[in-house]
Amino acid sequence: MTENTHATSTQVQLVSRPDGWPTAEDFRTVTVQLDDLGENQVRVANEFMSVDPYMRGRMSDAKSYIPPFVLGETMDGGAVGRVVASRSADLPVGTLVLHQLGWRDVAQADAGAFRAVADLPGASPSLYLGILGMTGLTAYVGLTEIAHLAPGETVFVSGAAGAVGTAVGQIARLLGAGRVIGSAGSDEKVALLKEKYGFDAALNYKTAPVREQLAELAPGGVDVFFDNVGGDHLEAAIDVMNDHGRLALCGAISQYNTTDTAEGPDNMVKFIKGSLSMRGFTLGNHLDKAGEYNEKMSEWFADGEIQYDETVVDGIENAVDAFLGLMRGANTGKMVVRTS
Amino acid sequence: MTENTHATSTQVQLVSRPDGWPTAEDFRTVTVQLDDLGENQVRVANEFMSVDPYMRGRMSDAKSYIPPFVLGETMDGGAVGRVVASRSADLPVGTLVLHQLGWRDVAQADAGAFRAVADLPGASPSLYLGILGMTGLTAYVGLTEIAHLAPGETVFVSGAAGAVGTAVGQIARLLGAGRVIGSAGSDEKVALLKEKYGFDAALNYKTAPVREQLAELAPGGVDVFFDNVGGDHLEAAIDVMNDHGRLALCGAISQYNTTDTAEGPDNMVKFIKGSLSMRGFTLGNHLDKAGEYNEKMSEWFADGEIQYDETVVDGIENAVDAFLGLMRGANTGKMVVRTS
Repeated sequence: MTENTHATSTQVQLVSRPDGWPTAEDFRTVTVQLDDLGENQVRVANEFMSVDPYMRGRMSDAKSYIPPFVLGETMDGGAVGRVVASRSADLPVGTLVLHQLGWRDVAQADAGAFRAVADLPGASPSLYLGILGMTGLTAYVGLTEIAHLAPGETVFVSGAAGAVGTAVGQIARLLGAGRVIGSAGSDEKVALLKEKYGFDAALNYKTAPVREQLAELAPGGVDVFFDNVGGDHLEAAIDVMNDHGRLALCGAISQYNTTDTAEGPDNMVKFIKGSLSMRGFTLGNHLDKAGEYNEKMSEWFADGEIQYDETVVDGIENAVDAFLGLMRGANTGKMVVRTS
Repeated sequence: MTENTHATSTQVQLVSRPDGWPTAEDFRTVTVQLDDLGENQVRVANEFMSVDPYMRGRMSDAKSYIPPFVLGETMDGGAVGRVVASRSADLPVGTLVLHQLGWRDVAQADAGAFRAVADLPGASPSLYLGILGMTGLTAYVGLTEIAHLAPGETVFVSGAAGAVGTAVGQIARLLGAGRVIGSAGSDEKVALLKEKYGFDAALNYKTAPVREQLAELAPGGVDVFFDNVGGDHLEAAIDVMNDHGRLALCGAISQYNTTDTAEGPDNMVKFIKGSLSMRGFTLGNHLDKAGEYNEKMSEWFADGEIQYDETVVDGIENAVDAFLGLMRGANTGKMVVRTS
């Protein structure tokens, strides 16, 4: 038992389900008084919380792989913070922990809800929300378990300047890809992909149709497509897939906030002619790969093989703006909110 | 060496590449004088030739898995016939043979181009072009290698009254499917699916949107979709696929003769939410399964477990009409041309 530090928690709640683009009115921020710590409970001052595209799905109540956010209650999501009060011998004050009680600046729960992680020498704990966490694992699982990337193959990644996309490009190269192509939404991001992240080619999807640009950048075709965007990106990729190509569908951010019926790819027949396979996935079904991934990524990271960007928004009160910015592509690399 | 019997061959040639629906003007029928038999050659009087949807692809010169028909030359395709003259000890006169020299009433080539098959007691040799041949193998490969059908699962087959479709429905049941649903283009075919082929439910896609009908017929969702049609059928199937469902794309007959850009499925995001996988295939990559299939099908056939229909068109001179009829769905079961 420690003194009653951080006794209030500022939290963001969903109050209505957005139809199309979420607006500020769909959320409210409240400050609640925390109970005294119960036995085996800990209190954590969050340092960073994650905003992720999948959260848009949880704001709707359509059937999905993950339950929707409950209206009028505080949302959750990935966060990293430090124990500030503890009635658990396993998690003493000062321990850095990773957990799912995001969208609040202080989290309190049974010790089992938190996992201790190492302080990284010279690096931000927020990396546990990105390249060293679920984001990086998502990239790894998509390339290996879903798309069966083989050495020498050509990979195309949509939304390549995002958190998952920058991980995909680098991990693909480290796994032996022959050529890595990415798409992004600005010339600055395109330059970053080529100069910092080692992409062989990149296109700005806002300046000309993806279909035209991709055909030019992939004269030898594409073997593996890692999709974060959907829509025109998926259609363009199908066009250029080599025989026996694999498409891993991870996200479809272009579709998440539209209320229109989305017209699908006009070239589905290519799946038959080219013996293509496509598979959608969500990380929850592949958490058994975490150990393998952590081992490989720790080594790559220690060897200085991994670049990353973070877009950091300050303050829990700006978390909704951060999420909306993410939906519009305002981030480069992982988007996090600094809550401390 | 035998007497010079069947010395002429009537053959169908492609003279122009159809844009959209093929017409009679895209073809010509010629009668050629055959050379004397060379050493090791045989001459075969074809009894039946196959017309198949995949042949539409070969009439175009777009890149595909199988070379296009050559303009001004005789088309080829599956056929079954009997040796009428032989300079090969392996294939004496009278042998029933299966081969790829269709679209002609008499075929002549090296013995290696023909494979001897058994005369079936009480059944037509044309079955080697259907359920006992590539058609049946296509159904089997799609359900097993591509879609990994498991016992108890629900299967939806589009174009279910066609040659592949009737095979899919029956083989799915024999492999333990829990519920088998099919689509067809007339009430008569729908009745046939349920009464003769053991489908649990079937819909007529011409009377109401597939999307509406399928949702009603599959209240528990679909685990395996075997697609011969594409377009609205694929879109409807995606809607109702259960989590981890598999889609095997075998054909897209709704798309083969359209010159319009085909709007794709509007529900591709479902692949991510439902962890769906989809794979297009062509039989040529899976011929290694022929032995396994022949063994199983021989047993099922001998046990009287297999029903079939054939739509037989008489005369090589009507082969083009037969093919066009196939494209329009005029057949029930396998469409063949009797060439003898």
